[in-house]
Amino acid sequence: MNNSVWTLARTPPAGWPSEDDFAWQERDLQQPAEGQALTRTLYLSLDPYQWGRRRSGVEAVGSVCHGRTVSQVVESRMAEYADGDFVFNTAGWQSYGLIGEGVDVFGYMFPRRLDPEIAPLSTAVGILGMLGLTAYSGLIVQCDPKPGETVVVSAASGGVGQAAGQMARIAGCRVVGVAGRQEKCDFVVNELGFDACVSHLSESYADDLRAACPDGIDVYFENVGGKTYEGVLGLLNTHSRITLCGFISQYGNTDGKDAAKVWRATGEPFFQRQSTTVHGLFVGNYVKSHQDEFLGKMAGWMVDGLVTYREQIWEGLPSAPKAFAAMLDGSNFGKSLVRVNADPTLT
Amino acid sequence: MNNSVWTLARTPPAGWPSEDDFAWQERDLQQPAEGQALTRTLYLSLDPYQWGRRRSGVEAVGSVCHGRTVSQVVESRMAEYADGDFVFNTAGWQSYGLIGEGVDVFGYMFPRRLDPEIAPLSTAVGILGMLGLTAYSGLIVQCDPKPGETVVVSAASGGVGQAAGQMARIAGCRVVGVAGRQEKCDFVVNELGFDACVSHLSESYADDLRAACPDGIDVYFENVGGKTYEGVLGLLNTHSRITLCGFISQYGNTDGKDAAKVWRATGEPFFQRQSTTVHGLFVGNYVKSHQDEFLGKMAGWMVDGLVTYREQIWEGLPSAPKAFAAMLDGSNFGKSLVRVNADPTLT
Repeated sequence: MNNSVWTLARTPPAGWPSEDDFAWQERDLQQPAEGQALTRTLYLSLDPYQWGRRRSGVEAVGSVCHGRTVSQVVESRMAEYADGDFVFNTAGWQSYGLIGEGVDVFGYMFPRRLDPEIAPLSTAVGILGMLGLTAYSGLIVQCDPKPGETVVVSAASGGVGQAAGQMARIAGCRVVGVAGRQEKCDFVVNELGFDACVSHLSESYADDLRAACPDGIDVYFENVGGKTYEGVLGLLNTHSRITLCGFISQYGNTDGKDAAKVWRATGEPFFQRQSTTVHGLFVGNYVKSHQDEFLGKMAGWMVDGLVTYREQIWEGLPSAPKAFAAMLDGSNFGKSLVRVNADPTLT
Repeated sequence: MNNSVWTLARTPPAGWPSEDDFAWQERDLQQPAEGQALTRTLYLSLDPYQWGRRRSGVEAVGSVCHGRTVSQVVESRMAEYADGDFVFNTAGWQSYGLIGEGVDVFGYMFPRRLDPEIAPLSTAVGILGMLGLTAYSGLIVQCDPKPGETVVVSAASGGVGQAAGQMARIAGCRVVGVAGRQEKCDFVVNELGFDACVSHLSESYADDLRAACPDGIDVYFENVGGKTYEGVLGLLNTHSRITLCGFISQYGNTDGKDAAKVWRATGEPFFQRQSTTVHGLFVGNYVKSHQDEFLGKMAGWMVDGLVTYREQIWEGLPSAPKAFAAMLDGSNFGKSLVRVNADPTLT
């Protein structure tokens, strides 16, 4: 039995991902040492931040591409897990991985056991996982939206955007999404229950956004940057709050401009006059302090039917590079996952 | 009897103020209409924001230069004030002014009566006025410093910096100032009770600041920008907070760079990783919500001897342009005021 692996073939050049950035390898299956367990990858999560790691050189050429995963323990030599257990881990872009003693984990994300009775396993890398916690940290903890306030969420049909917008709805806010294609906008309003959604692809985007926010914008959840953000600027109210989660529209820049700089260069005069608060968001800083609180609330909302969720699941590890590019260029729809091995709870 | 007036002679070019920006006029004294009062200016406050108003064209050429003042009512035709009352108002750079019906006030700053028994009159445009409220809004309301945290205050011997740093000390923080000349640094430590003060004029400024902040920086009160700020950057802790009050080092730029943009262009990569929060500060947004709370607390601190305060008082309205330039280039020392007419409470 082999372990199929995507490694990073090169530090990618500026622009968007291509197949040349990745190299497929068949490796021997590693045997777990005492204190470790071998896991089979069920779901691999694709997230925009991975592109930043690759482009910046944080991810070493030749290493297994990083990614959060849902896995099943197949051979345990550690007390914490039994064969068959489901775990959240960070196996990366490969079909098998190790957890336990001496296995590098991605900083703040320690493996944890998953109960498939509570929610579908895939949600552990989505709305019931780091992605949901990202939305919760940025929207609820940082921006503290009040009932009746207007909250705008960019990339509204994406993984983090879906979660953030629904939390704003639950908080009693007027929620306005920004998304691309019409079917995404329809989904955001009809399925997620946003009050409105405008398309950044429309020539009348700025006017549409203004019309959708008759009382201005109190909270902006930034996933996108660029034109989407520029439309928000003039609508910010006094004491408005922004959380900087990502700048996906700028990740493919080939002109050498840093994404964050592009973002900032347009906004600053407004921030001081309105006493706007801008929060940098890195979810790793909120795990210890807020993960338990978040998991409890989100599980409750899911049980009460207050939160729904759309995934786009690609079949098979070979699809990972293509799926990754689709997530970044917006041709995907919903939270992007790869089903690496069959999920035994779905039968 | 005449009213002596400094008017704006031109929209000043880039750089620092010069005498050519101002024109002296002797005007007839205005008579108060029914519902108005004539006031004699005692103190005129000089503040960095005035330069922004002049440079940006907000202040019209030919108009009386804007400024907050402490005045005494000399002829009242309004019920709220009697002859001899002391008031905070916004008479501007002139020796007499009107308050009351139909008299333009500067937005959020309405006249209020002053009691010279509580504190020296000059503090009404200083630590017991908008300047203290600026410090309070930025440091306490926005940044919420916790005991034991490290707070860095730039322009530490200036009006807002003095107030902010002492509030941080009262809050139980380690307080580190940044100032210019050695005598300013000594004052900040010995008189204001900061734990340390480093000079931005020193070649070892960045190292000095690092040494003064062994546990990193949790809160930064930004008055200055430029090199002062760059030293702060790499020392910011996770969940650090910044309040953007001003960028005085950049106000004289002649290269067309906007002050705020210069500030931002250096900082952003840190903000996201550390989940740093940046608050734009405009004190006008905090008057209704926090002025009463602030005045109560500050009066208490002054009575308890917890707060001290240094002013530089220039004698006579003719000195205003020179005093204004000195405040911007740092050759002043303390909160800058002009004594326009004698203060009858000081005898």
